[in-house]
Amino acid sequence: MRTMIGLVKEHRGPGAVLKEVPVPVIGPDEVLVRVVASSICGTDMHIYNWDAWAEKSVVTGHVFGHEFAGVVEEVGSRVSHVKIGDHVSAEGHMVCGICKPCRTGRSHVCLNTLSFGITAPGCFAEYAVVRASNVIHNRPDMPFEIACLQDPLGNAVQTVLSGDIVGKSVAIIGAGLIGLMSIAVARACGAAQVIAADINPYRLDMAHRMGADVLIHSGEVKLSQAIREHTNSEGAEVVLEMSGHPDAIREGFEGAANGARVSLLGIPTQDVPLDMGQIIFKGIRVEGITGRRMYETWYQMKGLLDRGILPLDQLVTHTFTLDRYEEAFELMREGRCGKVVFLHGASKPGDLAYNSTDAALQVSLSI
Amino acid sequence: MRTMIGLVKEHRGPGAVLKEVPVPVIGPDEVLVRVVASSICGTDMHIYNWDAWAEKSVVTGHVFGHEFAGVVEEVGSRVSHVKIGDHVSAEGHMVCGICKPCRTGRSHVCLNTLSFGITAPGCFAEYAVVRASNVIHNRPDMPFEIACLQDPLGNAVQTVLSGDIVGKSVAIIGAGLIGLMSIAVARACGAAQVIAADINPYRLDMAHRMGADVLIHSGEVKLSQAIREHTNSEGAEVVLEMSGHPDAIREGFEGAANGARVSLLGIPTQDVPLDMGQIIFKGIRVEGITGRRMYETWYQMKGLLDRGILPLDQLVTHTFTLDRYEEAFELMREGRCGKVVFLHGASKPGDLAYNSTDAALQVSLSI
Amino acid sequence: MRTMIGLVKEHRGPGAVLKEVPVPVIGPDEVLVRVVASSICGTDMHIYNWDAWAEKSVVTGHVFGHEFAGVVEEVGSRVSHVKIGDHVSAEGHMVCGICKPCRTGRSHVCLNTLSFGITAPGCFAEYAVVRASNVIHNRPDMPFEIACLQDPLGNAVQTVLSGDIVGKSVAIIGAGLIGLMSIAVARACGAAQVIAADINPYRLDMAHRMGADVLIHSGEVKLSQAIREHTNSEGAEVVLEMSGHPDAIREGFEGAANGARVSLLGIPTQDVPLDMGQIIFKGIRVEGITGRRMYETWYQMKGLLDRGILPLDQLVTHTFTLDRYEEAFELMREGRCGKVVFLHGASKPGDLAYNSTDAALQVSLSI
Amino acid sequence: MRTMIGLVKEHRGPGAVLKEVPVPVIGPDEVLVRVVASSICGTDMHIYNWDAWAEKSVVTGHVFGHEFAGVVEEVGSRVSHVKIGDHVSAEGHMVCGICKPCRTGRSHVCLNTLSFGITAPGCFAEYAVVRASNVIHNRPDMPFEIACLQDPLGNAVQTVLSGDIVGKSVAIIGAGLIGLMSIAVARACGAAQVIAADINPYRLDMAHRMGADVLIHSGEVKLSQAIREHTNSEGAEVVLEMSGHPDAIREGFEGAANGARVSLLGIPTQDVPLDMGQIIFKGIRVEGITGRRMYETWYQMKGLLDRGILPLDQLVTHTFTLDRYEEAFELMREGRCGKVVFLHGASKPGDLAYNSTDAALQVSLSI
Repeated sequence: MRTMIGLVKEHRGPGAVLKEVPVPVIGPDEVLVRVVASSICGTDMHIYNWDAWAEKSVVTGHVFGHEFAGVVEEVGSRVSHVKIGDHVSAEGHMVCGICKPCRTGRSHVCLNTLSFGITAPGCFAEYAVVRASNVIHNRPDMPFEIACLQDPLGNAVQTVLSGDIVGKSVAIIGAGLIGLMSIAVARACGAAQVIAADINPYRLDMAHRMGADVLIHSGEVKLSQAIREHTNSEGAEVVLEMSGHPDAIREGFEGAANGARVSLLGIPTQDVPLDMGQIIFKGIRVEGITGRRMYETWYQMKGLLDRGILPLDQLVTHTFTLDRYEEAFELMREGRCGKVVFLHGASKPGDLAYNSTDAALQVSLSI
Repeated sequence: MRTMIGLVKEHRGPGAVLKEVPVPVIGPDEVLVRVVASSICGTDMHIYNWDAWAEKSVVTGHVFGHEFAGVVEEVGSRVSHVKIGDHVSAEGHMVCGICKPCRTGRSHVCLNTLSFGITAPGCFAEYAVVRASNVIHNRPDMPFEIACLQDPLGNAVQTVLSGDIVGKSVAIIGAGLIGLMSIAVARACGAAQVIAADINPYRLDMAHRMGADVLIHSGEVKLSQAIREHTNSEGAEVVLEMSGHPDAIREGFEGAANGARVSLLGIPTQDVPLDMGQIIFKGIRVEGITGRRMYETWYQMKGLLDRGILPLDQLVTHTFTLDRYEEAFELMREGRCGKVVFLHGASKPGDLAYNSTDAALQVSLSI
Repeated sequence: MRTMIGLVKEHRGPGAVLKEVPVPVIGPDEVLVRVVASSICGTDMHIYNWDAWAEKSVVTGHVFGHEFAGVVEEVGSRVSHVKIGDHVSAEGHMVCGICKPCRTGRSHVCLNTLSFGITAPGCFAEYAVVRASNVIHNRPDMPFEIACLQDPLGNAVQTVLSGDIVGKSVAIIGAGLIGLMSIAVARACGAAQVIAADINPYRLDMAHRMGADVLIHSGEVKLSQAIREHTNSEGAEVVLEMSGHPDAIREGFEGAANGARVSLLGIPTQDVPLDMGQIIFKGIRVEGITGRRMYETWYQMKGLLDRGILPLDQLVTHTFTLDRYEEAFELMREGRCGKVVFLHGASKPGDLAYNSTDAALQVSLSI
Repeated sequence: MRTMIGLVKEHRGPGAVLKEVPVPVIGPDEVLVRVVASSICGTDMHIYNWDAWAEKSVVTGHVFGHEFAGVVEEVGSRVSHVKIGDHVSAEGHMVCGICKPCRTGRSHVCLNTLSFGITAPGCFAEYAVVRASNVIHNRPDMPFEIACLQDPLGNAVQTVLSGDIVGKSVAIIGAGLIGLMSIAVARACGAAQVIAADINPYRLDMAHRMGADVLIHSGEVKLSQAIREHTNSEGAEVVLEMSGHPDAIREGFEGAANGARVSLLGIPTQDVPLDMGQIIFKGIRVEGITGRRMYETWYQMKGLLDRGILPLDQLVTHTFTLDRYEEAFELMREGRCGKVVFLHGASKPGDLAYNSTDAALQVSLSI
C-alpha cells in the first residue's frame, strides 16, 4: 500500500496531525491528483481551532483542506475528459445531481452535498482524490500557487456577479481574502467605483493594492454615512457584505442606495437585528451567496484569469511547506498576512512558475 | 368657488373630519376626477389612528385616501391622452422623473416622491386631482368598486411577480387584503401550489375562497414546519411575506426552500433578529417590495383583470357612503371584514355595475 | 434471451417494421421501463417517411419513438432514486455533462447529445431503456396517455416561458400539437390574450377548444395586420412561431410589438429572407427554442399538470395498438387528428385511467 | 432676433448649406446649449448624401447633426435640475412618455419618437435646443471632443451589455466607430476574449489599438470558421453584429456558439436570407439594438468614462471647424478616418482640454 504525508484532523478538538496515511484509491468516476499547492481558507481555521461550527459540520478522521492545484496522476476507468498530466483544481461541492436544486441549475445549494476537505477527505496531503465531474482544468502556464486560489476567487466572482455591476458604485465590506479578491473582480468587470471597508489597517492597505478607489476604516467612522459621502449622498448601488459582523451588515443595508443590490457572503455567528424597512422601502434585492455557481462561476473566473487582469499575486504573502503547518496556522490566527499557501513536499522541479519566498513578499507589503 | 365634501385629516392626532372644502383647481399637466368609489387601505388606518409612522410620514391639512376609481371631469391644458368622461384610477406615487432611480426604470423608489393622499391631497372626497402622467385608464365596464382596488392589487401583483412563479410552491404569509389578492394572482400566473398562513380564522376562510390550496393557522403550529410538511420537506420555492410580524418573517425564511425567493412587503414596527445563515447557506434571493412598478405592474394587472380570472368581488365585504366613515374605520379596526369601500355621494345613477349591499356580502362570508 | 415486439426503423428509406427484438439489457446507470403509452411526434413522421432531415440525422437499426409513459420494471446497480413500479417518462436528450453548455445550465444544447428514439433506441416497443438521470417521475394517478405527452408539452412550456408572459398579448403561429399546447400553457400562466393562427380550420377549431381568444385563418388574411387589429394596432408583445413556414415567420416579426419577444420553435426547410429592421428598430428579443430546459421545464410542467388546468385530454383524438401503426401514421399524414397515441400491447388491466376509444374521441371533435 | 451659423439640410437631395439662421427660442421645459464640439455620425452621411433611408425618414428645413457636447446658456422656466454653465450632452430620442413602451421602461422604442437632428433641429450650429429631460450632465473636466462621442458610445454600451459579457468570448463584426468602441467596452466589462472582424485594414488597425485580441480580415477568410478557430471550435459566446452586411450577419450566426447571444445593431439595406436552424437548434438569443436604454445606458457609460478605461481619444482622428464641413464629409466618404469632430466657431478659449491637430492624429494612426 502506497502511503503519503497528510495533515489529518484526527480528533474532535483543536489541532491537527501530520502523519503517514494511505494514498487514496480512486473509483471509476474519480481522479487522483498530486497536490502541488494548497491554501488555507478561513474554514480551515475553524476546523483547526475547532469551534461551534466545526463541531456541527465537520467529519473527522481524514486529511482536511480544500483549496488546491496539482497534476493528475491517475484517472478512473470511466473518465474520459481528464488525462494524466493535466493541471487541475476542483470544485469542492460534491453534489447529488438528482435533487431539485441540482436538476434546475442550482447545484450549489444541492440538498445532499458532500464537501471536499470538510465532510470528505481533502487536499492537505501529497495526493487528493476528486470526482472527475468536479475537476477544473488549469492552463499549464498558470502558477500553482495562483491556481490554488480559485476556490475563494470563485466566491468573490459569484458575489460580485450576482447582479449588474457595470458603471455602478460598489461597497465591499470586509477586506478579508475574498473581499480583497472582490475588489479586483469588480474593477475588472466594469464597476464605476469600488469602496472598501475594514477595521484592520493592514487589510485596508491590501485593499488599496487591489485597486479600491475609496478606503473606509469602519471602526473609526459610521460606515453608512461614509459610503453616502462618497456616493453623492445616494448610497452604494451594490453592497457586498463579506465581514459577517452584525453592525457591518446593518450599516451595509443603511448605506445601500434605493434599488440597490446587497449580496451577503459573510456569516454572522448570531442573529442580526435588521431594520427590514431598509430592504422594503428602498426596494432592495438581497442575494445570499454560497459556494460558486457550478460551473458558470468557474468559466467566468477562467476568462478573467486568462486575461491576466486580476493581481492575485499580490495576495499570496506567505508560503510554507506542509511540515510547517503550525507556523502557518499561527500566522493566520495573528492576521498579519494575505493568503497563506502550502507548497507540497511532492513538488517536482519546475512545478513553480512563480518563485516567491516569505521574506520577499513580506517586504513588498511592508510599505 | 366650487366646494365639495371631503374627509380631511386636519390635525396631527387621531380622527378625521368630514367637511366642505374647495374643489381642487388643476394645473396644465393635471386631471380632475369625480371619485365614484374609494377604499380604505391599512395606511389610511395608520393616518386615522395617528401612530408613530403617521407622525413621521404624513402631511396634514388636506383630504386623505389614495385608492379610488372615478370619471374624468376636467383635463389640464397640456394633457392630450386623457379625455373628459374617461374611467380612471391613478398610481399614487408622484415622482420627480430626474433622479437616478426614475431615470433607470425604478421610479417606485424615486428619491423625491410625493404620495397622493399621504403627503399630498387624496381621494376621500367628491373630487380628486391627479397628475395626467399617473392616470390609469379603466375599462368602462369595470365596476368602480373593483377598479378602486387596483392600488393594493398592484402591490400583490408586484410581489407575486418579483421573480418566477410558474410551477412553484408559494407560501403567502399574512392573509390581509394584499395577501388575499396575492393568492388569486399567484394562481392566475401558474403557481403550482398556494399555501396561505394567518392567525385569523376569518382571514383563512377568505384565503380559501381566493383559491389557497393549503391553509395554515400560524398561531397554532410552527409555520416553517407546516410549510415543509406540505412541500415534500423541501420548503416553499417562493415566500411572500405580507404580515410584517417578526416571528412570521423568521419562520418565512426558515420555511423557504434552498434557492428560494422571499419577497417582503409587510413592514415590521421594530428590528427583526434574523438568522442570516438562512439566507446565505440556502442561496436565497430577497426582494423588498414597495408600491408598484411604474407602470409595468399596471399593465400586468390590466391583463389579468381583463381576463376576469381574479375573484376580486369576493374581497369587497362592506360598502359605505362617505358620511358613515366612522363606522367604516371602526369596522376596519375590528378586522372582521375584507375590503371596505366608500361609494361616493357624487355617484350618478348607473355608476355601479356591481350592486352589492353590506348585508348580502356579509352573508356570503358568514359560513 | 427475452424478446419483445417493437417498431423498428430498419432501413434508410420510407417505412418501418414491427418485429420481435431483444428486450434491452440495462447498464448500471440505466432503467428498464415497460411502456404503457407512447405518442407520435412530427419527428417520427420524418423518420417514418424518411426525408432529407432523417437522412442527415437518424441512426437506423433500432426501435424509434421518443414520447412515452410507463412503469419501471428494472433498475441498474448504481441507481437509487428510481424504484421498480414507479410511473415514469423521460427526457430524451442524453447529454454529456462535461461540455461547456452542460456545465453552465444549458445542457439542452449539449455539444455531444444522443437522442432517445432518433440516434439511440426508443420507445415504440414493449420495453425501453433510459438513463436514470433522465427519468421523470409521474404521479401514479396521471393517465399514461396524458403522461406520454410531456415531451412535446415541454417544448410548449419552454417556448411560452422563454420570457415574460403575464398580462401580455400572445400570438401563437401554427396550431400543430405544440402550438395547441402552448395556447393552454399561455393561458395558465397569465397571458392577457391568446391569438392563434393557422391555415387549417380543423386546427383552428382545436385552438378554440384549448382556449384561444382570437382565431386567425392565416391563409385568408394578412397575418401581421390581423394581429395588429386585435392588439390595438400595437402588435403582439409575445410571438411564438411554431409553423416553420417562411411567410409566417416574416409575418410574425411584422406583427410583433415594439420591444416584443419572438420565440422560434418551428423549423423552416429553407433559408428565410428576413427584414432585420423588424428586429433592430423595434428592439425585439428573439429566442431560439430547442428541446426542454433540463430540468426546469419539467418542474414547471409538473406544477401545471398537478393543478389540472391544462385540458390535454382534448388533444388525444385517436388511440391505436402498436400493431396498427400503419393506420396511425397514415392518419397523421392526412392531418385530421390531434395527438395519436399508441396503447402498448404489454399493458396490464388497470393501466389506463382514461378509457377512450377512437370513435368516442372522433365524435367529440366532429362538431 | 439673434442669429447663428448653422449647417442646414434645406432640400430633399444631396448636400447641405452653411447659413445664418435664428438662434432657437426655448420653451419652458427646454434648454439652450452653446455647442462646443459635435461629431459626424453615419446617419449624418445618409442625410448629407440623401439616400433611400433619408428620403423616408428625414424632415428637412433645419440644422442637422445629433452628436454634441456643449455648455448650457439658458434654461426654461420649469427647469430646475439644469443650470446655466453646466457642461452637457443629450439623448437624441425625444419620447412621448405615455405609450406602453415608454411606460414600461422601454422608451428607446417609443411609439411616438421625435429625433434630434433628424426629424427635429439638431446640433451642427452654434446653439442647439434640447429638452431638459434629455440633458446629460458631463463632468467639467471631460474634453468636449470626447463628450460629444457619447451618443454612439451609448450604442456600443447597450449592444455589449444586452446580455452577460464577463468571461465570455466576444466576436465584434464590423469595426466602424461603434464596433471600435464596443471593443473597448467589452474589454472594460470583463470579456475574456475580443475578436474583431472587418474588411478594411485601416479599421482592423484601429481595432487593434482599441484592444481586440484577435483580428479577422473577413474579406479574406470565412468568418465563422475563423471565429471557431479562435474559440476552441465552440464559436463565440457573444456576437455583436455591427456591419449590417447580409453575409456578415449569416456568418455571425454560424460562428455563434450553442447558447450564444447575438446582438444586432448594423442595419442591412435588404432582406437577409437566414438559416433559422442556426438560431433554433443552437438555442440562440438575438437582441435587436436601437438607440440607448433611457437612461440606464448613460449611467453605465458615465461609470466607465469616469474610470478612464476607454481609450476614446484614439478614435478622434480628425477635427474641423464647421465651415470646413465639405472636407469633413468628403473624408468620411473616403473612410480613411476614425471619428470626425467639428470644433464649433463659438468656442471660447479654454474650452478644449484636449488639443489635437489633424496632422498629429493622422501620424499616430499611420503606422
